[in-house]
Amino acid sequence: MPRSRAAVYDGATPKHIDVRDFEVPEFGPAGELVLRTRRCGVCGSDLHRWSWSKETPVILGHEILGVVEQAPHGWLAADGTPLQVGDLVVPETRIPCHTCEFCRGVGSRPSKQIDYSHCPNQRGLGGIRLNEMPLLSGGWSDYVELPNGAIVHKIPPEVDREEAVLLEPFSIGMKASRVADVNQDDTVLILGPGPIGLLATVACHVVGAKRVILAGRAGDEERLALGRELGAHATIDVGEGDPVEKLKALNNGRLATRVIEATGVAAAIELGLTMLARGGVLVTVGGHRPDARITLNPSDLVWTQREIRGMQLGALNYESCIGVMASRRYPLRKMLTHRFELPDIQRALETFAERGGCIKPVIVFD
Amino acid sequence: MPRSRAAVYDGATPKHIDVRDFEVPEFGPAGELVLRTRRCGVCGSDLHRWSWSKETPVILGHEILGVVEQAPHGWLAADGTPLQVGDLVVPETRIPCHTCEFCRGVGSRPSKQIDYSHCPNQRGLGGIRLNEMPLLSGGWSDYVELPNGAIVHKIPPEVDREEAVLLEPFSIGMKASRVADVNQDDTVLILGPGPIGLLATVACHVVGAKRVILAGRAGDEERLALGRELGAHATIDVGEGDPVEKLKALNNGRLATRVIEATGVAAAIELGLTMLARGGVLVTVGGHRPDARITLNPSDLVWTQREIRGMQLGALNYESCIGVMASRRYPLRKMLTHRFELPDIQRALETFAERGGCIKPVIVFD
Amino acid sequence: MPRSRAAVYDGATPKHIDVRDFEVPEFGPAGELVLRTRRCGVCGSDLHRWSWSKETPVILGHEILGVVEQAPHGWLAADGTPLQVGDLVVPETRIPCHTCEFCRGVGSRPSKQIDYSHCPNQRGLGGIRLNEMPLLSGGWSDYVELPNGAIVHKIPPEVDREEAVLLEPFSIGMKASRVADVNQDDTVLILGPGPIGLLATVACHVVGAKRVILAGRAGDEERLALGRELGAHATIDVGEGDPVEKLKALNNGRLATRVIEATGVAAAIELGLTMLARGGVLVTVGGHRPDARITLNPSDLVWTQREIRGMQLGALNYESCIGVMASRRYPLRKMLTHRFELPDIQRALETFAERGGCIKPVIVFD
Amino acid sequence: MPRSRAAVYDGATPKHIDVRDFEVPEFGPAGELVLRTRRCGVCGSDLHRWSWSKETPVILGHEILGVVEQAPHGWLAADGTPLQVGDLVVPETRIPCHTCEFCRGVGSRPSKQIDYSHCPNQRGLGGIRLNEMPLLSGGWSDYVELPNGAIVHKIPPEVDREEAVLLEPFSIGMKASRVADVNQDDTVLILGPGPIGLLATVACHVVGAKRVILAGRAGDEERLALGRELGAHATIDVGEGDPVEKLKALNNGRLATRVIEATGVAAAIELGLTMLARGGVLVTVGGHRPDARITLNPSDLVWTQREIRGMQLGALNYESCIGVMASRRYPLRKMLTHRFELPDIQRALETFAERGGCIKPVIVFD
Repeated sequence: MPRSRAAVYDGATPKHIDVRDFEVPEFGPAGELVLRTRRCGVCGSDLHRWSWSKETPVILGHEILGVVEQAPHGWLAADGTPLQVGDLVVPETRIPCHTCEFCRGVGSRPSKQIDYSHCPNQRGLGGIRLNEMPLLSGGWSDYVELPNGAIVHKIPPEVDREEAVLLEPFSIGMKASRVADVNQDDTVLILGPGPIGLLATVACHVVGAKRVILAGRAGDEERLALGRELGAHATIDVGEGDPVEKLKALNNGRLATRVIEATGVAAAIELGLTMLARGGVLVTVGGHRPDARITLNPSDLVWTQREIRGMQLGALNYESCIGVMASRRYPLRKMLTHRFELPDIQRALETFAERGGCIKPVIVFD
Repeated sequence: MPRSRAAVYDGATPKHIDVRDFEVPEFGPAGELVLRTRRCGVCGSDLHRWSWSKETPVILGHEILGVVEQAPHGWLAADGTPLQVGDLVVPETRIPCHTCEFCRGVGSRPSKQIDYSHCPNQRGLGGIRLNEMPLLSGGWSDYVELPNGAIVHKIPPEVDREEAVLLEPFSIGMKASRVADVNQDDTVLILGPGPIGLLATVACHVVGAKRVILAGRAGDEERLALGRELGAHATIDVGEGDPVEKLKALNNGRLATRVIEATGVAAAIELGLTMLARGGVLVTVGGHRPDARITLNPSDLVWTQREIRGMQLGALNYESCIGVMASRRYPLRKMLTHRFELPDIQRALETFAERGGCIKPVIVFD
Repeated sequence: MPRSRAAVYDGATPKHIDVRDFEVPEFGPAGELVLRTRRCGVCGSDLHRWSWSKETPVILGHEILGVVEQAPHGWLAADGTPLQVGDLVVPETRIPCHTCEFCRGVGSRPSKQIDYSHCPNQRGLGGIRLNEMPLLSGGWSDYVELPNGAIVHKIPPEVDREEAVLLEPFSIGMKASRVADVNQDDTVLILGPGPIGLLATVACHVVGAKRVILAGRAGDEERLALGRELGAHATIDVGEGDPVEKLKALNNGRLATRVIEATGVAAAIELGLTMLARGGVLVTVGGHRPDARITLNPSDLVWTQREIRGMQLGALNYESCIGVMASRRYPLRKMLTHRFELPDIQRALETFAERGGCIKPVIVFD
Repeated sequence: MPRSRAAVYDGATPKHIDVRDFEVPEFGPAGELVLRTRRCGVCGSDLHRWSWSKETPVILGHEILGVVEQAPHGWLAADGTPLQVGDLVVPETRIPCHTCEFCRGVGSRPSKQIDYSHCPNQRGLGGIRLNEMPLLSGGWSDYVELPNGAIVHKIPPEVDREEAVLLEPFSIGMKASRVADVNQDDTVLILGPGPIGLLATVACHVVGAKRVILAGRAGDEERLALGRELGAHATIDVGEGDPVEKLKALNNGRLATRVIEATGVAAAIELGLTMLARGGVLVTVGGHRPDARITLNPSDLVWTQREIRGMQLGALNYESCIGVMASRRYPLRKMLTHRFELPDIQRALETFAERGGCIKPVIVFD
């Protein structure tokens, strides 16, 4: 009988996770695509759940890189071709219904693209309860069962076999650049040099922003240095001195035309608005605490005609991220600072929580 | 054993169609949604097939209005809610794969929305061969079996119960207004007062075009008159006199900023370009013959910075058309000029081929 | 020597304005276009200045309808044709530099149009100090001198000769519908049935919004009734009961996809967000007090992917508003509830401040 | 009395140009900005005029790089700051009226940006007749007089002092990438490795196109090699073998999603359409002969939903091109293959006409 180790967060004991050994009568009993996991990232949202979620037990992990172990007839990859045993793949993190108006993109328009991330019927890998089907629904597991409707990307040979584990967070950074509608006329300020901020840096560089300025605080020196390798034209420490003046000194005396807030700290939105030019757009993609609040002066939006746009999930941006990875233009792999085996998952979470030099920990399954 | 009459075009005898009586062991054997047909329109493309297609036998008809007869568990309507026996519905004419990049909208951008109409795996109602599944795949049939993946719209009570049969061609007219990116600064010239031209007239009026001018030729008087009821601010006969001067006389001496060609006659594209202003866009949605050709002067596109955009299929526009129908602002029902019962399908096609006062014939199943 | 009466707010005595008689050596000494005023509206921003501005003396009034009295050689109208003595015209309220990147539209993109309203060199009619040139720079004056660079629209004969005084505020309502990117898939909630809210109602109806719902409070009954004549499909009182439930009852159980806040009350933004659907956009165009503040939950923007967009000034929307006025589809003239002669300007302001049945007071100069 | 040598094409003798010595009573008599020319490029359109234009005499040359010699009070640079004597600048090639709806961008929309290039009142440097004002209106002249309304860009110190002469053609290549709406999901095929094709290559690389494939013919080897240095991921020779197969071999078996035709040969449009994917866009920016014609199958646009977009002039793209030049990411200077002094202008034109290794000749004035 097939077995799979999997890390379960039980919702009862914050900051505790344990690895269980599941005996499974049959993999993919309802026609699921079955993956053997190769790598799975640890995301800030995993950390949030582990720290304070009260949900019933789930197998966590949604930044999944795996090899197809079972491919029932009819499963197509995201490029419309059949999936086959042995393919190296990354599944999108949400499984949408493909039927509702959000999934189909009804209501999309030039100023705002609608994608499946609004689907009311969607489910998320790494967030399906143990008493629901499929059983092996998270990536911190030897095997993953993907239900019908999952969107699965084949990783082409040009892409580094390990770096591909970054595809899911990269899609979020790429979507941030699209929601901000960054182009070659922009100076983009990115607040927060965590994984999303760094990957948004890459995305803004890809689309040709005139200047990408990445901002952090004391302790972020290594992250900012990596940011400069990943496309930031300059970096600043917003924790000391006058951030507005620092920005202007780097940008011909002007404020940023676009700001991407990727810190998860509400005050960063307020800071970002002080650094945003007339007619500019601030995108917030941070994982803010539910009780966080910001205070705004509405005149400050009206007379300057500025905008705040919230966003989450990468949705339609996986393909372009694969393209960037295949180009090998950016040393993305350097973001994978820490590797852990599954039994060390508790330590992985603790290390990530301490930040320091840990940018993106990954669980290794080879 | 269930039975269904259905009109089959056998691909061997042009301009001939016959109604067969099918005995079916079981409706919806593979979990299809089964409809009892109420109305089905006759489209110009049906006429083309009936006139010269050499395909193997199919049940024609794709402008379907029906009542749900069987709704297997899990079938969702396009609004994300469950489908139930008795619902009055219109299915979209194509059944896409929902997986490939076109179906998901990857590559969409402000200047051009990508939709499932590019899906390489799509199938079309009224175009599936008799030796394929499902059997009852066209609308000129008492019952229709919709395969998994079909997109099915519930018709709300505000909509006229018969007018709803126009939803599919209306979605094409609506998409034409989107592809042309018509707005309140535009004078739109619509060439061809057939069903698509008339429904594009409605669509352009809906979105607030400054002027909608519908053009026809001798013999189109009734269609043009209906066009004026459907939102055209003026109509012109392009068959006599100087069409350019006629247009200018109606438009402050200016050419049209948008032209929608809905004639199926290639020369209409060339005519339309002579009536299109600098910086303008011409959309061609006509069902042109495969051997048709147009001749263009490329300088005429470059120095005037004008565009030609081809399009087909309504895709993401059904919802907004339902909204317009529900508003009851436009006497769309007047387009349904001729009604036939299924046994008279041959006469319906012949009547439509003669044009005259026949704008849209529908097959009635009550 | 030419003379002109003009209403001057001196910045010293709040809620006081007086009409002075100016002797002018020569009209248009620096080549200005000179208008004889026919009508000039009173705007909420005029009321704000009159109530608490401390600026040095200005001739107020920027919603100007006038007849060309002097047209120096080379003055072109906004349509590129020469201006002539006797033309009935409306000038745009701001005089931009036409040179800077904002005036030229550099940085415009599909999700956000850049217009001259960001020009750092712009000046505004009704806001130029008396010690600057030109002297007669506000509309509450028998004559107005327009400096070089002013954008002047000829009013075509199809437009009602008095209604045209609404062109400037109408351009703001129209721009609100563009910034919100309203289309035929939208339910738009408009908060505030003042002049801008009513004109945004017209604009959203023009561009084909599925539903336009106008919201007010006790005392707004007449304004809401007029709103229904101007395109609102329904109106609600948000001051009693549960506004969210009222909206849902009118909209198939759903929230609004677009909200336009035109109240000038900061709390209306917070209320609007509770009524805004996932993926929706809230536009604030209100004249908020400088010390107003709102409190937001950032998660509420991120997880629902919603946006807040600030805007002011109609800029590129005058032409389309003239088109709507020329169509005579909407009884805009009913908005002109009160007419005053220039000597009664103080009473005009007091009447407007009391609101009641006073929607838009205009100063009459015939 | 000031003097200026200038190359005059007299419209009477094709393929002949002569350098005259003008005595000028006063530079800039009507308040023109006066430049001392540093470099001026030779454009394909100059070659066309020199070859077959019958216009009356003009001073040719519109790719102008110069130093401000006289700056009358009030002249602002394109960035809104005052122009000063000694500034190194590039003027935009057209002088628009800044008043008409095209200059102001009325009618712009997400699928199509309207700019001053449609202005009916515009004039073009290098195309103003000698009997009009100003006299020194072309760049093949020691001095240039820019009339009021000219848009003048300061060249920042980060930009190579000679490379800046490419700013005007670069703006056209950049606009081509915008009209084609190129993004990170695209494979772009660029037909023609002349200056515009090469600069469009840079532009498409800047905005992150997944693949940029530059195509030429026998004799273009050096141009294609330079193209690879300027951002082309691959180059192909479309003159031998099957171009479609060559493209597919470089692009995972697929056609190009965007094609930019920059050859000036009409047949290249037809070839480009055979290489353009479903849903794709072909932009033609070529300087086609007035008598050129192409033949199209309209079904080929309708069923594949493809588009052809004509364009000219860089308009709003100068700023972003300056940004790219300032980044020094691309060896643009290598495009300046040939330098001539003004007296050798006839030889410059003959050399350019022979093509060969001559990509962009410039006239040097130091």
